[in-house]
Amino acid sequence: MTTPLRLGIAGLGTVGAGVVKIVRQKADLLRERTGRPIEIVAVSARNRDTDRGVSLSDYAWEDDPVALARRDDVDVFVELMGGADGPAKAATEAALDSGTDVVTANKAMLAHHGQALAERAEAHDAILRFEAAVAGGIPVIKALTEGLAGNEITRVMGVMNGTCNYILTRMEGAGLTYQEAFDEADALGYLEADPELDVGGIDAGHKLALLSSIAFGTQVAFDAVELEGIGRVTIDDIRQAADMDFKIKLLGVCRMTGRGLEQRMAPCLVPASSPLGQLDGGTNMVVIEGDQVGQIVMRGAGAGEGPTASAVMGDVMDLARGFRVSTFGQSAGSLVAATPARTATPASFYLRMALADRPGALAKVATALGEAGISIDRMRQYGHSSDAAPVLIVTHKTTRGALDQAIEAMRATGVVRGEPVALRIERV
Amino acid sequence: MTTPLRLGIAGLGTVGAGVVKIVRQKADLLRERTGRPIEIVAVSARNRDTDRGVSLSDYAWEDDPVALARRDDVDVFVELMGGADGPAKAATEAALDSGTDVVTANKAMLAHHGQALAERAEAHDAILRFEAAVAGGIPVIKALTEGLAGNEITRVMGVMNGTCNYILTRMEGAGLTYQEAFDEADALGYLEADPELDVGGIDAGHKLALLSSIAFGTQVAFDAVELEGIGRVTIDDIRQAADMDFKIKLLGVCRMTGRGLEQRMAPCLVPASSPLGQLDGGTNMVVIEGDQVGQIVMRGAGAGEGPTASAVMGDVMDLARGFRVSTFGQSAGSLVAATPARTATPASFYLRMALADRPGALAKVATALGEAGISIDRMRQYGHSSDAAPVLIVTHKTTRGALDQAIEAMRATGVVRGEPVALRIERV
Repeated sequence: MTTPLRLGIAGLGTVGAGVVKIVRQKADLLRERTGRPIEIVAVSARNRDTDRGVSLSDYAWEDDPVALARRDDVDVFVELMGGADGPAKAATEAALDSGTDVVTANKAMLAHHGQALAERAEAHDAILRFEAAVAGGIPVIKALTEGLAGNEITRVMGVMNGTCNYILTRMEGAGLTYQEAFDEADALGYLEADPELDVGGIDAGHKLALLSSIAFGTQVAFDAVELEGIGRVTIDDIRQAADMDFKIKLLGVCRMTGRGLEQRMAPCLVPASSPLGQLDGGTNMVVIEGDQVGQIVMRGAGAGEGPTASAVMGDVMDLARGFRVSTFGQSAGSLVAATPARTATPASFYLRMALADRPGALAKVATALGEAGISIDRMRQYGHSSDAAPVLIVTHKTTRGALDQAIEAMRATGVVRGEPVALRIERV
Repeated sequence: MTTPLRLGIAGLGTVGAGVVKIVRQKADLLRERTGRPIEIVAVSARNRDTDRGVSLSDYAWEDDPVALARRDDVDVFVELMGGADGPAKAATEAALDSGTDVVTANKAMLAHHGQALAERAEAHDAILRFEAAVAGGIPVIKALTEGLAGNEITRVMGVMNGTCNYILTRMEGAGLTYQEAFDEADALGYLEADPELDVGGIDAGHKLALLSSIAFGTQVAFDAVELEGIGRVTIDDIRQAADMDFKIKLLGVCRMTGRGLEQRMAPCLVPASSPLGQLDGGTNMVVIEGDQVGQIVMRGAGAGEGPTASAVMGDVMDLARGFRVSTFGQSAGSLVAATPARTATPASFYLRMALADRPGALAKVATALGEAGISIDRMRQYGHSSDAAPVLIVTHKTTRGALDQAIEAMRATGVVRGEPVALRIERV
């Protein structure tokens, strides 16, 4: 295995340029560790003339990433263009069809087309790896697919969108409103072009769908992820949670239950003293629970040139070493289509709403909860100046379904103003 | 690759029995994930008749682990006997000499003979893996060898002896003396037969030596690890540290410096709010810092049947998948003999001593520090009833060498009673 491993890199943004730099500057280290040289033979990007801080003159240039993916002299096609469809998908398919291995950081593409791509890879005896697509530099795909492969995984949780965690941390630490923290993140360039990908939980939901496929041997089912963004979390919610020793995090949770596969990405309350509760700023954390290993917590940078390029290189070096592993950790044909279990696991909920300031309003809310079989752990009504009284309720364990039914019933009484906020209290 | 992978397991204590259970009970899962059956063909242990809670009647029995290691029908020899030398080493060598792959949990054997075993493995085209030897169920060897292989590693730190962390946590939380906490750990069965392996830092030092070999491409050099146990940490040290927002942990640190390789396993002060500072009880944590990825933190159970068996199975399943990787992440011949750098990196130190209660004693201590070029960040002398006054000093940055020199000078003045305690304040 002293023949070089030849890369073709499509997409030369921050991460692509970072990968080029590592391959150029660490050639000796990479050869020492994998036993063979790793070389770039060709690159592709939208604009050839952009200054990327690294020389590309040694490499063939392809305007068309599909042509790059089909080159005979490319052993590994490194896809760093992004986008669920379009050129990224076309080029990835072209590479796999040619029997060329693919390393990608493209969570959207895999979340939407993971099963089809995994089948395609297998049909052509090609490998498709995506460590960089989930939690940046944290080698969590490897841990789940390989290191913990002897476990039945019972639950995977993750804070996997640094921008959301930054916004929530700033709201808490600096007392900013959601909008102020959002604007700050925007000014710092933390937000995607479509901010809803971040704050709507979509980006993090993509990552969760990939993790749950590996964890439970199921076909990627992003559409089955219950998604809820952070846009309705207020500074009051954060303060109320803190009063009870909780923090609010955009938390992804997947677990297999007797009723099917639960996948949720939603703002949750987690104990302030837990590793997840202590995670501040743009850092990511993934928690994996297995029947043998108990709980493994992994923490690190979830984005950025270095961390993401590190993850891409981990995959590339595995291929240089001759590691062949199925896309989602087992053959594509053996992945089962899981039944989504929307509201399987009971939990306590944090419920905030505004009530019309008139006699009997609170009683109607309590009645609606009682009729849905939900008992109340604590309830507070706050002083107020407007005609709507803020009310906070923490329920005992119930299901999301029962809670939604109670909220519907409350609304029907006409005493609820605006939209109640219901956040799950996750045991971590 | 649908031929079975055949295991021979030597050592059927808790972990060995745990591995047998996983192979028996999860046969379908293992085959699904690796693409081939994993089977046990033969086992060996000191006593055939012990009840291990799992049937062994399907497997050939070997009284002699060396004979087991040499069997033609064994593809992977799983060494779970323990001990740096003796049967474990003889059997491991026999397996490697036969070209049989080895998976082991034996940190002592690898810390003392890692380089020779890695060379032996390579000479016979055999693979030697040891995920279970470091930090129990945390897949940290894999992360360092594979996932983060694109990084130059700058520092690795770890709390890797759960017993020591348990003792320190109990001293802090319950106000126990060292001896009381030690006795409690002993009663709970947490201590090795030779407790010095735990509380002397030796067991954790073995693990650190293995991590630094992979991190820096150096030959394992356990003898070069600066070892200091937790036996001299007092409840007062823990309280003084807490007053300054620090916790005391038995922390391993390795880093490559311009003057050579630093490897230390010693009680240190770490910020109470850091992930390492927040690590309570028997849990392990490893922190890996790389030039690309920044800081990766991994946390999980460091011992026990399930976690350790999980790590063994991770290695076994890699072999079932056909992964071939050098013992320490690069060829044995390319590992360099590192110069040990005893006192390279400066730090602040926490220094506690008892002074003779006579005029000028404190001045003599301050003078000794000044003459060694060490400036004082803070200094306190406490009220006392005996004739020795407890004094606490926190220095500004200095080297351990300068500090030792100052302590020598203090002693020469005759004002110091007993042995001063000096703990490094590690920036984490």
